[in-house]
Amino acid sequence: MPTHSNVNRAIRDASPALDALLSELGRAAEYPPDIPFQAAQARSVSLNATIGQITDGSGGILALKAVSEQLGSLADRHLDAALLYSPVEGDPELRRLWARHHRPSGAAGAGSSLPLVTIGLTEALSLVADLCCDRGRAVLVPAPFWGNYRQIFGLRRGASIVPVEVIRERRFEARAIVEAVHSQPEGEPVVLILNFPSNPLGYSPTVDERTELVEGLVRAAEARPILAICDDAYSGLVFEDGVPSESLYWSLVGRHPSLLPVKIDGATKELVLFGARVGFLTFPFPRDSAVAIAVESKLKCLLRASVGSPVALSQRLVVETLRTPGVEDEVATVREILGRRYRCLKEALAAADPRLLRPVAFNSGCFAVLDLPDGLDSEKVRRRLLADYDTGVVSLGGSYLRLAYCSVKEESLGTLIERIESCLSAMLSE
Amino acid sequence: MPTHSNVNRAIRDASPALDALLSELGRAAEYPPDIPFQAAQARSVSLNATIGQITDGSGGILALKAVSEQLGSLADRHLDAALLYSPVEGDPELRRLWARHHRPSGAAGAGSSLPLVTIGLTEALSLVADLCCDRGRAVLVPAPFWGNYRQIFGLRRGASIVPVEVIRERRFEARAIVEAVHSQPEGEPVVLILNFPSNPLGYSPTVDERTELVEGLVRAAEARPILAICDDAYSGLVFEDGVPSESLYWSLVGRHPSLLPVKIDGATKELVLFGARVGFLTFPFPRDSAVAIAVESKLKCLLRASVGSPVALSQRLVVETLRTPGVEDEVATVREILGRRYRCLKEALAAADPRLLRPVAFNSGCFAVLDLPDGLDSEKVRRRLLADYDTGVVSLGGSYLRLAYCSVKEESLGTLIERIESCLSAMLSE
Repeated sequence: MPTHSNVNRAIRDASPALDALLSELGRAAEYPPDIPFQAAQARSVSLNATIGQITDGSGGILALKAVSEQLGSLADRHLDAALLYSPVEGDPELRRLWARHHRPSGAAGAGSSLPLVTIGLTEALSLVADLCCDRGRAVLVPAPFWGNYRQIFGLRRGASIVPVEVIRERRFEARAIVEAVHSQPEGEPVVLILNFPSNPLGYSPTVDERTELVEGLVRAAEARPILAICDDAYSGLVFEDGVPSESLYWSLVGRHPSLLPVKIDGATKELVLFGARVGFLTFPFPRDSAVAIAVESKLKCLLRASVGSPVALSQRLVVETLRTPGVEDEVATVREILGRRYRCLKEALAAADPRLLRPVAFNSGCFAVLDLPDGLDSEKVRRRLLADYDTGVVSLGGSYLRLAYCSVKEESLGTLIERIESCLSAMLSE
Repeated sequence: MPTHSNVNRAIRDASPALDALLSELGRAAEYPPDIPFQAAQARSVSLNATIGQITDGSGGILALKAVSEQLGSLADRHLDAALLYSPVEGDPELRRLWARHHRPSGAAGAGSSLPLVTIGLTEALSLVADLCCDRGRAVLVPAPFWGNYRQIFGLRRGASIVPVEVIRERRFEARAIVEAVHSQPEGEPVVLILNFPSNPLGYSPTVDERTELVEGLVRAAEARPILAICDDAYSGLVFEDGVPSESLYWSLVGRHPSLLPVKIDGATKELVLFGARVGFLTFPFPRDSAVAIAVESKLKCLLRASVGSPVALSQRLVVETLRTPGVEDEVATVREILGRRYRCLKEALAAADPRLLRPVAFNSGCFAVLDLPDGLDSEKVRRRLLADYDTGVVSLGGSYLRLAYCSVKEESLGTLIERIESCLSAMLSE
C-alpha cells in the first residue's frame, strides 16, 4: 500500500517538474486504504461482505425490472457492469479501448498512462486544477476562451487566470502563447491551456503554427516547469486540408522533462454523447510506472472526494459503442455533416457585407466567432437578436459573438447570417 | 440576472445562520451569465446557435446508431433527454418527481427547495462542503463513520473532522451528538453529519432517541448556527417495528432559524442504481423563494466548476423508472430481501459464541459492525479472513469490523458468521 512519502517520492524522482507544480491539496492527496481499496482486494473471494452494494449475493445486481426494461441490450448483456459501481479509476476495458482509439500510429512508443475516466471533460480539468493549482498559480489561457475555465481554475482553486490574446486583426498568432509563457516571473511554474480545435474560436493551428508553438514551448521549458493541458474536446473536427487534426499532446509528449502535457478528451463530442458525462485524463508517464501509479493514486483520491466514482452506465454504453462494427463510419458521417455546415457558413459569410460580418479565423470544431463592427457591444447584440430576430447566439463580452453552427441546420445557416446582418445594420443606423 | 451582492443579500436576509456558515468559496460562488445561462434564455427561439451540442438543427441529437441501439426503450422514446446535456440543476421533471417521492404526507407544508441533481450522493456532500467549509470549520461526525467524509470535508476543504463516539458498550447514545455540539466553542457555527440508517453501523434511532436528538439540537441551535446534513443514502431500509424510517430532515426542518437541515439522498441504494450516479440535495427553503434561488445559483456555479452538469442518461432512466407502474412494489421486494438477510444475520449472531461475536446495536441499512474481542486488531483480522477463510470484510481500524450483509446471500450468512468465529477463535489461541 503506498504512503504519502512513497507517492510523493515517486513523483519527485520521476518528474521534478510535476513535483514543483503540485498544489498543497495535490501533495496531500493519496488514495486511502478504505472501503474501495479493501473491496478491490476481496474481489475474488467466495464470501464477499465488503461493499455496500445490494446484490444477489454472488456479485450480481438485484436490479429492478422497472430499470432493466428501459435499457435494451445494455441490460440484456451487461446489467452488472452498467448498474454496479465502476472502479474509481474507470472500467478497465474502457480505459484500454479509449487509449487505443486515441493513440496515433506514429506514437506507439510514446509513454502515456492509461486514461483515467472522469465525469465529462470538466471533471478532468477540475482534477488537474485540484492537483496543480493553489492560490496565485498562473494559468495561461489563450483568449477569447471558454468562460468555465474561470470557474474551474480561478473560482474553485484561486489560481490566477492570465488571458493570452491570440487574435491579432482576426488572425491567430501562435507566438503570443510562447511569449506569454516567457513573460511570467523567471523559474515560476505555469499551467497552460491548449484547446484546439478551440471553443469559442473554432480554430486549429496550421502545420507552421504548430511547429512554432511546439518548439517555442520546448525552449520555454528550459526556464520553468510547464503543465500544458491539451483540452481535446473537439478532437477530430478539422475541416481544412493541411490543418493537422492530431492532438498537440502527441507533439509535446517526451520532448522536455519540464514540459508536461496532459491530455483531456471524451465521448461528449467525439461520440455525440453530451448527456452521458464520460471524459478521460491521460498523463505523460509510462503505463504502470511508479510515477503513473502515484499520480493515479492522487487522482483517485480527489475523484473519490468529489464524485465517488465515474458513471458505470455511461461507461458501459461507450464500451459497447466503441465495439460496434462500423462505428468509425458513423462518426465520420457526423463529421461530414458538420463539415458541410462549416463550408455553408463560410459561403454565407463570404456573401455578406464585410464591414458588418467580420469572422475571426476559423477552420475546425463547432463554432465561429464574429468580431462586431466598432461601437457595438456583443451583449447588446445578443439581446437584440433574441428579442427582435428570434435568434440565439452567445456574447463573449467586448466585440465577440459566438455562433454554434454545430447546432444549426445547413439550410438555416444562410438565414442565421442574414438575420445577424440585418440586426447589425439596424443597430448601427440607430 | 443576480449579482454577488444580490445573492449574498438574499441569503443574509432570509437565513443569517447560513450566512454565518458560508465558506469563502461559497460566498464567492454565483452562477455566471455565460453559455448555459445564455442558452437557457434562447431555448424557444427558431434559430438557436448558442450551445455546442451536435444536433440535427432542430434541437434533436445526431445520435450514432451504435449508441441508440444499445438503449432499448430509453432511446426509442427519450433519446434527446438521455443524450443531450441536462440542465445544470437537473431535469425539471426528475426534480419534481423526486421531491414528491420523498415528501412524507405529514410534511406537506414544510418549506423545502426542489432537489438539485448531483453525481451520486458524494457530490451532494462535496457541494455542501464547498459551500460551507473553510479550513478549520468543525464537522462533527458520529463515529465510527464512513471514511470518505474525511476526504470530502477534511482533505478537500481543510475542515476539522470531529469524531463523536456514539457507541458506548455497543449501544447507541443520541445524547453524545448533542453534547458534542455543546462542547464546541461558544457561538462557533458547526456542521453536523446525521447518517441514519448509518454506514457502517446499520443503525437508526428509536422513537425516544430521535426525540432526544431532535429536541437537543433545537436547544443547541440557540447557541450557534448548525448545518445538519441528513445523509439519507440508506433511506427506507429499516427492519424493526417501532424504529421510524422517515428522514430526520423532516423532523428538523422549520424547527429553529439557526438549525439548518439539508437532505442528501439518491437513487443509488433506493432504486438499486449504484453505477448511474444520481443523487439529490435539498435545502430547507421554500421553493422559488429568493434564498432558495440564491443558494441554487451558488450550487450551480460550484457544480459547473467541477463536473459541468449531471448525467442526463441516468436521470432519464430514473424518471422512467419512477413512472413505471408497480415500481414501489419492486422496491418493497428488494427491502424484503434485505430484511430477511437482516433477520438471518441476527439469528446467526445469536447462535454464535457471545465472547467472540459481539455485534454493535444494528437495526437498519446494509451493514452490521462487530466489536472484536480485546487484543484483536480489525485490520489483522480482515487480512486473515481474506488469506485463510476466503472471506472479505472491511476493517474500520481499532476493534471494529464491518459486514455488508446487503451483498451476501441469505443462506450464506450462517457460513459468514461461522468463518469469522473460527478465525477469531484461531487468532485468540495463537
